Amino acid sequence: MKQDVKQGVLLYAGKAKQVFSTDDPELLWVYYLDQATALNGKKKVAIDGKGTLNLHISGLLFKELAATGFPTHFVTDMDNQNMLVRRAKMIPLEVVVRNRASGHFVSRFNVTPLRVLDPAIHEFYYKSDALDDPFMNDEQIVALGIAPRATLDTLRTMADQVNTWLTARWARAGIELVDFKLEFGRLADGTLVLADELSPDNMRLIDAQTHASLDKDVFRQDEGPLVPVYAEVLRRLQATQQEVHHV
Amino acid sequence: MKQDVKQGVLLYAGKAKQVFSTDDPELLWVYYLDQATALNGKKKVAIDGKGTLNLHISGLLFKELAATGFPTHFVTDMDNQNMLVRRAKMIPLEVVVRNRASGHFVSRFNVTPLRVLDPAIHEFYYKSDALDDPFMNDEQIVALGIAPRATLDTLRTMADQVNTWLTARWARAGIELVDFKLEFGRLADGTLVLADELSPDNMRLIDAQTHASLDKDVFRQDEGPLVPVYAEVLRRLQATQQEVHHV
Ligand SMILES: Nc1ncnc2c1ncn2[C@@H]1O[C@H](COP(=O)(O)OP(=O)(O)OP(=O)(O)O)[C@@H](O)[C@H]1O
Ligand SMILES: Nc1ncnc2c1ncn2[C@@H]1O[C@H](COP(=O)(O)OP(=O)(O)OP(=O)(O)O)[C@@H](O)[C@H]1O
Ligand SMILES: [Mg+2]
Ligand SMILES: [Mg+2]
Repeated sequence: MKQDVKQGVLLYAGKAKQVFSTDDPELLWVYYLDQATALNGKKKVAIDGKGTLNLHISGLLFKELAATGFPTHFVTDMDNQNMLVRRAKMIPLEVVVRNRASGHFVSRFNVTPLRVLDPAIHEFYYKSDALDDPFMNDEQIVALGIAPRATLDTLRTMADQVNTWLTARWARAGIELVDFKLEFGRLADGTLVLADELSPDNMRLIDAQTHASLDKDVFRQDEGPLVPVYAEVLRRLQATQQEVHHV
Repeated sequence: MKQDVKQGVLLYAGKAKQVFSTDDPELLWVYYLDQATALNGKKKVAIDGKGTLNLHISGLLFKELAATGFPTHFVTDMDNQNMLVRRAKMIPLEVVVRNRASGHFVSRFNVTPLRVLDPAIHEFYYKSDALDDPFMNDEQIVALGIAPRATLDTLRTMADQVNTWLTARWARAGIELVDFKLEFGRLADGTLVLADELSPDNMRLIDAQTHASLDKDVFRQDEGPLVPVYAEVLRRLQATQQEVHHV
């Protein structure tokens, strides 16, 4: 319950979320904003209800993923638009996994949209607004001291584990996972955990039958209102939750 | 001598060279143009004498490198502006090796110019004018069928060997090798060889003492006439050639 961990000061105002300190130095409150951005923030729109939907999609997925034993920042507590998480020292890399070609991958290499990439491709982008999140290879990342090589291998392995689990989870909801972006961080004790969010803002999802977009591409490409799409995604996830049997 | 291998038709008109067939299907004549380009061809200027200088620099380096046993496309024959080479099926990758930060590496990651990168960094760029030679990681290259992973490892190893030899060779001429771009191809029998050129068009060279540019950056950055600089580079190479003792 939120009253147990008091919200402190705003530590970081992001494009999709705000991060607040709490009275426990190892915990943070993350507030999901009613806002959508694209083109690295150049396109920015307020969207009523988006924050709550993303919070619930993200919360449901984190909770189920954490239940499998996978290390995440998730702490069960949530209220209407806030999620309690463990504070992590973020690794400044976006870890992208692609099961099919989409977005930049299509335009950059002129490949057929939705071309299957098997095995899935991993890409690292340096999280730096000033540098516009440049794409990097392993040697560059290591040379610039952003992360050691062993961490990159671990990140790929962990991203693969998330991919396997997440692909199956979305499939149960009649949705195919095209690609996604993850962020990882280290807890105070050094444990590497999946942090940030698990929402249609950071994944490309398509309906398994129709291949219709069920993610932020609807907003990026002005295909119509976002909220009904995210609501449908949440509905399908909730409809396919499996009972957890506590012994 | 050129008369032994007759020049045939123009097979490829590049930005820096023209490639001609010969009466031997496994050999090509490469003509070094009196032309400099930058910004992927957007900046293009005719420069009298550049072709001959690059031909001689490239020829001298290929000859010495080949003498060490390293596989190259070089065939000893040369005339004023032409070099005879073995025809290779080119691997459509630019293999870049960086000993110090320079050019795009500096602007993309905002690092100090000439910062030492030890070990040297390797980067692959997909040779595609239509796509503007995009930077790629190994997984992308393998997934798009451009080259298998084993070839990428071999290319890195071969590029390291060239780097070791070339760094020492330029050092003898009082020049430091900052970075360079190589292209490789396969001969009819499948042998992987270093192809294309070895010239100041494809390397960043700085005077070991003054750190003055001794390469195409002089042209890219309008620092003055190119020909005297390339002539000085050739002069230093020729002055530091070691005798080859034939037994
Ligand atoms: N467990 C965590 N501990 C600390 N920081 C976290 C944690 N999870 C996520 N973050 C960080 O909190 C911020 C969330 O805000 P948001 O996603 O809106 O940022 P953003 O606008 O995408 O900008 P950027 O991701 O480039 O910082 C991100 O910087 C994210 O890396
Ligand atoms: N041994 C070889 N056999 C066949 N082709 C070669 C060989 N060596 C070099 N080449 C190719 O010959 C061309 C040389 O022309 P040049 O370097 O002017 O091309 P460019 O304008 O740089 O364009 P690009 O390199 O993008 O094709 C290049 O396409 C190069 O890959
Ligand atoms: Mg974010
Ligand atoms: Mg070329």
